[in-house]
Amino acid sequence: MTQSFKKRLYIIIFEADTFLGKLFDVILLIAILLSVLAVMLESVNHIKDDYGYELYLIEWIFTVLFTLEYLARIYVSAKPKKYIFSFFGVIDLLSILPTFIGLFAAGAHSLLIIRSIRLLRVFRVLKMVRYLGEASSLMKALNASRAKIIVFIGAVFSLTVILGTIMYLIEGGENGFTSIPRSIYWAVVTLTTVGYGDIAPGTTLGQIVATAIMILGYGIIAVPTGIVSAEISSQSKKIRDSTTPYCDECGTKQKRPEAKFCFNCGNQL
Amino acid sequence: MTQSFKKRLYIIIFEADTFLGKLFDVILLIAILLSVLAVMLESVNHIKDDYGYELYLIEWIFTVLFTLEYLARIYVSAKPKKYIFSFFGVIDLLSILPTFIGLFAAGAHSLLIIRSIRLLRVFRVLKMVRYLGEASSLMKALNASRAKIIVFIGAVFSLTVILGTIMYLIEGGENGFTSIPRSIYWAVVTLTTVGYGDIAPGTTLGQIVATAIMILGYGIIAVPTGIVSAEISSQSKKIRDSTTPYCDECGTKQKRPEAKFCFNCGNQL
Amino acid sequence: MTQSFKKRLYIIIFEADTFLGKLFDVILLIAILLSVLAVMLESVNHIKDDYGYELYLIEWIFTVLFTLEYLARIYVSAKPKKYIFSFFGVIDLLSILPTFIGLFAAGAHSLLIIRSIRLLRVFRVLKMVRYLGEASSLMKALNASRAKIIVFIGAVFSLTVILGTIMYLIEGGENGFTSIPRSIYWAVVTLTTVGYGDIAPGTTLGQIVATAIMILGYGIIAVPTGIVSAEISSQSKKIRDSTTPYCDECGTKQKRPEAKFCFNCGNQL
Amino acid sequence: MTQSFKKRLYIIIFEADTFLGKLFDVILLIAILLSVLAVMLESVNHIKDDYGYELYLIEWIFTVLFTLEYLARIYVSAKPKKYIFSFFGVIDLLSILPTFIGLFAAGAHSLLIIRSIRLLRVFRVLKMVRYLGEASSLMKALNASRAKIIVFIGAVFSLTVILGTIMYLIEGGENGFTSIPRSIYWAVVTLTTVGYGDIAPGTTLGQIVATAIMILGYGIIAVPTGIVSAEISSQSKKIRDSTTPYCDECGTKQKRPEAKFCFNCGNQL
Repeated sequence: MTQSFKKRLYIIIFEADTFLGKLFDVILLIAILLSVLAVMLESVNHIKDDYGYELYLIEWIFTVLFTLEYLARIYVSAKPKKYIFSFFGVIDLLSILPTFIGLFAAGAHSLLIIRSIRLLRVFRVLKMVRYLGEASSLMKALNASRAKIIVFIGAVFSLTVILGTIMYLIEGGENGFTSIPRSIYWAVVTLTTVGYGDIAPGTTLGQIVATAIMILGYGIIAVPTGIVSAEISSQSKKIRDSTTPYCDECGTKQKRPEAKFCFNCGNQL
Repeated sequence: MTQSFKKRLYIIIFEADTFLGKLFDVILLIAILLSVLAVMLESVNHIKDDYGYELYLIEWIFTVLFTLEYLARIYVSAKPKKYIFSFFGVIDLLSILPTFIGLFAAGAHSLLIIRSIRLLRVFRVLKMVRYLGEASSLMKALNASRAKIIVFIGAVFSLTVILGTIMYLIEGGENGFTSIPRSIYWAVVTLTTVGYGDIAPGTTLGQIVATAIMILGYGIIAVPTGIVSAEISSQSKKIRDSTTPYCDECGTKQKRPEAKFCFNCGNQL
Repeated sequence: MTQSFKKRLYIIIFEADTFLGKLFDVILLIAILLSVLAVMLESVNHIKDDYGYELYLIEWIFTVLFTLEYLARIYVSAKPKKYIFSFFGVIDLLSILPTFIGLFAAGAHSLLIIRSIRLLRVFRVLKMVRYLGEASSLMKALNASRAKIIVFIGAVFSLTVILGTIMYLIEGGENGFTSIPRSIYWAVVTLTTVGYGDIAPGTTLGQIVATAIMILGYGIIAVPTGIVSAEISSQSKKIRDSTTPYCDECGTKQKRPEAKFCFNCGNQL
Repeated sequence: MTQSFKKRLYIIIFEADTFLGKLFDVILLIAILLSVLAVMLESVNHIKDDYGYELYLIEWIFTVLFTLEYLARIYVSAKPKKYIFSFFGVIDLLSILPTFIGLFAAGAHSLLIIRSIRLLRVFRVLKMVRYLGEASSLMKALNASRAKIIVFIGAVFSLTVILGTIMYLIEGGENGFTSIPRSIYWAVVTLTTVGYGDIAPGTTLGQIVATAIMILGYGIIAVPTGIVSAEISSQSKKIRDSTTPYCDECGTKQKRPEAKFCFNCGNQL
């Protein structure tokens, strides 16, 4: 009977086909979002001053909830160790640990470290990754174009190092270009079309070079888009291809996944 | 005869194939744009001071015009209730209601609420949606890729929460990173390459992380573009496919929509 | 003999296949760029003060040159009227007229108008359009997706009107959102990811809405890219298709434009 | 035996298939990154003040290392001259030359020139190009769409000249639009959606025109993306095509590169 209870719990927690399974997922999703919201609000000074105690209470409610969820997941897993050391096992642990550490370490240690650890709770948002459908064609497309994207980022990095150095030489320490790293920071800001404006070229030559960099950036932005776009296109084509039926009669592959009659011999599929 | 008048009016108002039907559409389009312009100008202080009365008059002319249009649409509809509760029925009502409410509520109530209601008139611009050709392949493409775009926005949201928290820890309340929500706001501003510059990292470590975020944003922007681009591509292929004729003689599907002779047997299509 | 000279001149001026024809094109291109550069430099105060006379001289040299070119074009055209009223005829006239008007009008009239007319000379840059290869597949792709792009711009316009009004209500005249037109200006700046930062939301609610707008803009930017990208893709496919040869022997269309032997019967193409 | 040593060295330095060859590549890559980092840090004033001597030492270690690498490459090359005058030969020389020049020229010459030459060492980052896989389909796609991108940049340049002049006329020297070149700089900043905000339109008419420019820029950014995206798509199709096998039995080209049996006659490939 325990076995049966364990199995039913497994279906509720790890699957989403039954009503209870869906309900569990929805409640968990809401709990994640609310707990992240609470962490965020706690960082706003005037909210913490006014509602500090309420936020503290809410924090513990969510921690208890997620602890129960974590223990339940370990309990129902066929191989608990495998779950504990999986990506989601670590994330689930990380989302409850900081609150407990904050409890024990409240006394002596550096406040900054505790604060940092407490803020780790925001990583609870990663628990949502479970619902992003990681097997989707989107992830596949990104994965397939990973090599090209790394090459691209390497090239952009090299480019910004060179452009940053050139601008450092041209602007000569003025207008915020005080060192090569800062100039590189500016080059990235410009090339990616972010353009904060905290550093901007002041000399005429600097502005001419900046103009050239911007138009360059305009062209470069096309590259990752082109890569991903071509990949998604080919992914969705593969999916369409693999769902397109063959004719039982003459063996011809149909042209459309929704085909109902063979376009070659008219046989019903 | 009334029936015939009702039908003729229906054709003028709801269809665009006759001369009067087109004229009605063009006049309505211009009226929408002018009335929205009037609402916009009314919000500019020095224009309201100088031309307040003229704007008030114009407002009432357009309101009467749109009211007549609304009543006419109800009158000619075969099922008036269906029209009234349709998307466009609600929009048409919303575009006249605020002016009337402003009339009755002018006395006692809070000025801010009236002002807000009056500004609702700007939603008249939605009346234009009728002319955007909602059945177009563009909407279909966007609709088909909706699921992927939601996953994408969810992922971007999670990412900005984490990046915002990291930057809040690094910059430590200085340079505008005063709370996690503000840091998230900054992360979105940076990741989407908007880059206002009202908040910008000041510490060296902050600038290094910001640089990484920007290059990341550069890669991420490729994803929605890739999705939509692949979808539009496949949509326009479907349209081309469905307009490509079959040969009457040998039954072969042609390769081009503009084909005039069968590429297989030479039979004129 | 005059006829022959006229024809030779025609080939030099209007065509680019002979050596002299190419030389003419290159010289003209350089002259256009230099004359535009001169107009640009004239607008820089300290350059005008120091080199005003030299720039005046250069201006007249280019004007005489372009006048000769204009007269030559009229002279060699078979139908001079057709050239004069063509796009390039008007551009060629507009690129010399301002200098002459500046000469006659130097005395009495408003300085601003003369200055504006003189600056029209910058439109000489349009003379370069001749060399952009307007028949290219790029223009065709843009042309083919014109309808979709207009729908898209209409939708973006409607969206910014609504978003601008909402932000005007939220921010309430502070932080630069002093009127609806200014708020719309801000909405466009944000939605297009330009992000000057001259106007930026200050209230918490305003920043939340701004965040939503930015992520929206991130998704919207995908649409025109998708349209153009799908169109260019289909254009270049058409070109490849139309340059792919048919087999003389068995009539099969080849799969690749560079095919040298029929993939079906092996016949040399 | 020397011959054999030379050959083994050649395999280590120029190839990456053996363990030592890979080790050499990894060490070289790390050395490049560290040496570039050192140059960058040297430009930060307070780091140079504190660690000047250490950086000087590190600089010489890397210079000796790269000199040895350069000499080794010349030694093992079958045609040393070809290597020396190749792209990578010049880059390899340029990455060691500045340090030696700095040594000899330390006495009398202008400090700025020496500083500029020393900063040339940052070009060492180009040594990494070797690892970017220049024969990849990415480079091919960029190369194939070069003509279209040049046309596009030419068109963008012409557009910004005209838009910059118009804004100069509208804003009339105020709000930073002090000359046509500066206005063009602003037009590029806006059109590419960088948006520093160092120059921003102040007049109402200026803001309306700016709004139009931004929406235009939104549409224009689609063009290079579309070009590259279509090109990459067609490149990866070509690669897939060229790896798709033919059937030995019936000669039919298979539809998929991973096909194991002929889809036409069932023959094992």
